[in-house]
Amino acid sequence: MSAFLAACRREQPAHRPVWIMRQAGRYLPEYRALRAKVDFATLTRTPELAAEVTLQPLKRFALDAAILFSDIMTPLQGMGIELTFAPGPVVAQPIRTLAQIESLPALVPERDVPFVLEAIRLIRGAAPREVPLIGFAGAPFTLLCYLVCGKPSKEFAAARSFLYAEPQASERLLNCLADAMAAYLAAQAAAGAQALMLFESWAGLLGPAEYQRFALAAVRRTAQRLRGCGVPLIYYLNQGSALMGAVADLEVEVIGVDWRCGLAEVRRVLGPAKAVQGNLDPAALFAPPAELRRLAGAVVEQAGPAPGHIFNLGHGIWPDTDPDQVARLIDYVHERR
Amino acid sequence: MSAFLAACRREQPAHRPVWIMRQAGRYLPEYRALRAKVDFATLTRTPELAAEVTLQPLKRFALDAAILFSDIMTPLQGMGIELTFAPGPVVAQPIRTLAQIESLPALVPERDVPFVLEAIRLIRGAAPREVPLIGFAGAPFTLLCYLVCGKPSKEFAAARSFLYAEPQASERLLNCLADAMAAYLAAQAAAGAQALMLFESWAGLLGPAEYQRFALAAVRRTAQRLRGCGVPLIYYLNQGSALMGAVADLEVEVIGVDWRCGLAEVRRVLGPAKAVQGNLDPAALFAPPAELRRLAGAVVEQAGPAPGHIFNLGHGIWPDTDPDQVARLIDYVHERR
Repeated sequence: MSAFLAACRREQPAHRPVWIMRQAGRYLPEYRALRAKVDFATLTRTPELAAEVTLQPLKRFALDAAILFSDIMTPLQGMGIELTFAPGPVVAQPIRTLAQIESLPALVPERDVPFVLEAIRLIRGAAPREVPLIGFAGAPFTLLCYLVCGKPSKEFAAARSFLYAEPQASERLLNCLADAMAAYLAAQAAAGAQALMLFESWAGLLGPAEYQRFALAAVRRTAQRLRGCGVPLIYYLNQGSALMGAVADLEVEVIGVDWRCGLAEVRRVLGPAKAVQGNLDPAALFAPPAELRRLAGAVVEQAGPAPGHIFNLGHGIWPDTDPDQVARLIDYVHERR
Repeated sequence: MSAFLAACRREQPAHRPVWIMRQAGRYLPEYRALRAKVDFATLTRTPELAAEVTLQPLKRFALDAAILFSDIMTPLQGMGIELTFAPGPVVAQPIRTLAQIESLPALVPERDVPFVLEAIRLIRGAAPREVPLIGFAGAPFTLLCYLVCGKPSKEFAAARSFLYAEPQASERLLNCLADAMAAYLAAQAAAGAQALMLFESWAGLLGPAEYQRFALAAVRRTAQRLRGCGVPLIYYLNQGSALMGAVADLEVEVIGVDWRCGLAEVRRVLGPAKAVQGNLDPAALFAPPAELRRLAGAVVEQAGPAPGHIFNLGHGIWPDTDPDQVARLIDYVHERR
């Protein structure tokens, strides 16, 4: 079994696995060369190109997993939501009413986003056997943030006030998104994805009670619908240090955490039944190599024994990162046990 | 003694005190009317106008404290940093080199920002006796974020990578800012401020080790220099839920926290020697009144007994908040014990 899948299952891997959030992306010259010719939306909707971009970092680095190149908003476009990338997603008609929510159709992945499933098949045909492919989706509350606000925002104030002002409509929207993302992820697994990841990029906007009522309830719904899909499920929460107790009994194999959490404390709170993914600060890749090695080692020390730890950054890699630093980081992780 | 100052000292207040971060600001029609005539920088630099704006919310609401109307960047302008507000601070020449850091002058408040001290004297002359005035400054790391990035940013990537790439230069800048803010706050106390607050708006950008090495070390330096100034010191950390253990022994009377922290856990970790300020979600002011009352009550329940708790939002009030909701919130807090 690959080191990545062994770690997801908390078994002893041959080495500590590492991959990097946004490893296919703007910090790579070969990605920028392709983007100079093709816009972002086209990349995500053209299976051959999405596969090419997904595979780019595997050709450079000894990564232990691949992750589908796509966007969390892609399935929403498949549900008829009009949006553009500028570069963050801008929704033509933000969702603010129950009528809009009730008119959202169910997602039928094979019909609505066939190019994603085709990209997965192409990647599985071309990727090295020992490098599993991770499929992904946005977690329902994070998608709600974009749908209600209409565009990226520091505070996502409109989305947060919507939860308080319209809690029933919010829950209805979250349930709809939870079901759609469950269908989307199940289709990705059926097409060949060997692990599935839910990105809760905006968990850190909510206090503990609202997180549990809205965001976590929706993730539980998605996870329950994916029970029996046969591949490990990873739930990444950004800024989730106060929420670890709440997710300890979530039915997922892996919890992904950001760099602000102490990993030792995270593993203590989550207990032995969960694997953990993370959590080097993306800014640490700007340290001199000797310091980067020390910082990577500190994450490994905090994480403890290799079974059940997948090394990653705590957030997506920054576009101005030096790819040579990524190569060094992967070496530093692999030389540790 | 006022309820606010009693709570700072963990003594029994006559009632649970409440004030609101950014209580003087854009959600008030009378503030917007003044701003239609005068730009933001002029407001902060004209003692009569700064005093008028500071006092505006006290005329509407039964608030238990006033806070000086100013900006965390104001003393940096006094140190020769050129900046504009657009509306966030934009620094003409971002700080990126040791030479720039070494050329920063010390702050002499009476010479460099006399208008701030004069505003404090005017406010003290006009404010009700039972409503103490809080002076404030930005915490050194938060100021560094603006100085290095040059403008507000979601990630403050340039500042965070600067810490890793140039740790010695970063520490030098932080020490310089710590000393300047200590001088600034001491001068505010001498002019009549009855409590002092340090705003660490960007604590949540740092992992625990970097927070302690950079941000907290600088705050300790400021706090040590303010020892014996005779007024309580409040340290507000935004997104600090993972950092409470680190600040438990900081020499300040009050720790202010955001809405993502569970207050019961915060008080447990901080122990009986610290008062706590916070932490209702600013978005909660968009809930219907009955729900707002329930949410305010939940904060009070979490906070526990009144001695040592100052009710506040967990972050600044949003500009589109209904002032009537603020009046209700203050009533809901005061009706509780």
